Amino acid sequence: MKPKTIAFDADDTLWHNEPYFDEAQARFCELFQDYASSQEILGQILNHQVKNLPLYGFGIKAFTLSMIETALQITNHSISGKGIEKIIAIGKDLLQKPVELLPHVEEVLQELKGNYKLIVATKGDLKDQHRKLHDSGLGHYFHHIEVLSDKTEVDYTKMLGRLDIQAADFLMVGNSLKSDVLPILKIGGYGVHVPYHTTWEYEKIDFEIQHENFSAITTINEIIPLLGH
Amino acid sequence: MKPKTIAFDADDTLWHNEPYFDEAQARFCELFQDYASSQEILGQILNHQVKNLPLYGFGIKAFTLSMIETALQITNHSISGKGIEKIIAIGKDLLQKPVELLPHVEEVLQELKGNYKLIVATKGDLKDQHRKLHDSGLGHYFHHIEVLSDKTEVDYTKMLGRLDIQAADFLMVGNSLKSDVLPILKIGGYGVHVPYHTTWEYEKIDFEIQHENFSAITTINEIIPLLGH
Repeated sequence: MKPKTIAFDADDTLWHNEPYFDEAQARFCELFQDYASSQEILGQILNHQVKNLPLYGFGIKAFTLSMIETALQITNHSISGKGIEKIIAIGKDLLQKPVELLPHVEEVLQELKGNYKLIVATKGDLKDQHRKLHDSGLGHYFHHIEVLSDKTEVDYTKMLGRLDIQAADFLMVGNSLKSDVLPILKIGGYGVHVPYHTTWEYEKIDFEIQHENFSAITTINEIIPLLGH
Repeated sequence: MKPKTIAFDADDTLWHNEPYFDEAQARFCELFQDYASSQEILGQILNHQVKNLPLYGFGIKAFTLSMIETALQITNHSISGKGIEKIIAIGKDLLQKPVELLPHVEEVLQELKGNYKLIVATKGDLKDQHRKLHDSGLGHYFHHIEVLSDKTEVDYTKMLGRLDIQAADFLMVGNSLKSDVLPILKIGGYGVHVPYHTTWEYEKIDFEIQHENFSAITTINEIIPLLGH
């Protein structure tokens, strides 16, 4: 593995994210506990998110709108204006969460900077991802920040084309096998999986990856020896 | 004016957009006509949009959430679930509007392609802007699509840095003096204003621009002689 460019996913790869969504969903379930079980509510939020993806894409605004639709459904439209207001507040709180770096992230970027072109490749709300990168203090390590509307083979191929990067020189590092690894392997790049302790249901896959360009590590600093440093 | 790169704003510069928002707002005003005058409602939507900009940024999802907040306010939280559903539907309709090119756009791009690096520089929802560019059929004219979270001097400076473009070689063409022209002039680039027949209140400025790097034209094809072709 001799990449020239290394791209990092952001949420749950560079900094904590999913626990904030879990907390937001727990608040939502509590608001509507008289109407349905948490399990049922979480299933309905996911249904609405997936159904809305083609129109809304990823990110907290889409999540907020999907929570509102879920609330309309489970209350059979009997939700009050105050209830809607509480959902909007849950979304706004998410947009203001502190950015907490994952262990070893900064030392890894410090080590790699200078030897590689470093990129952030993330999904989500444009404004929110820029805000988080700013708040993370990591911006100066990166040559480029790409907020993608999705992470399919087509999206990555377009990104590499724009940035004039050959897939064979490209390594993507992230916590989602589905979004950060599989599409990259398919277009001829390298993929490294760094698991996060919790994964959004939508990002889960139910098979194992075996590929000569694929590596799995436990913590992000294991990428340094993997690259032969 | 001898730019090497020409960036075009998208909404109301390449294709119609603001009339769809006006239509959406008219539907919203009709829904709540028993509570307030259209003028008052439109003022409140704008207030909520501007207040939410730092968290939500631009685009239709932000607009939808701001409409919901406006509805909560003007109905004093008495809005029904069905009412909320109608607002979400207004937002979703906006995300599926056909893309209608403005006159002369394609002939101008055809003429300029090959002689300049052409870029789209737009605000709004990432997913929605990519969808519109795809539906427009104009994608192949552009070297790069940049969806910006805002169009300030800082945003443009970062974009030019990433794309390795000197401001003195850069021309921005758009319908908003505030977002497409002023910040570009301030960082040393060229700005051309092509007015659209209606302008979002937020984008209006109340002074005239006089600057050696500034030109105002009436229709987009006037850019061709302006560039000396």
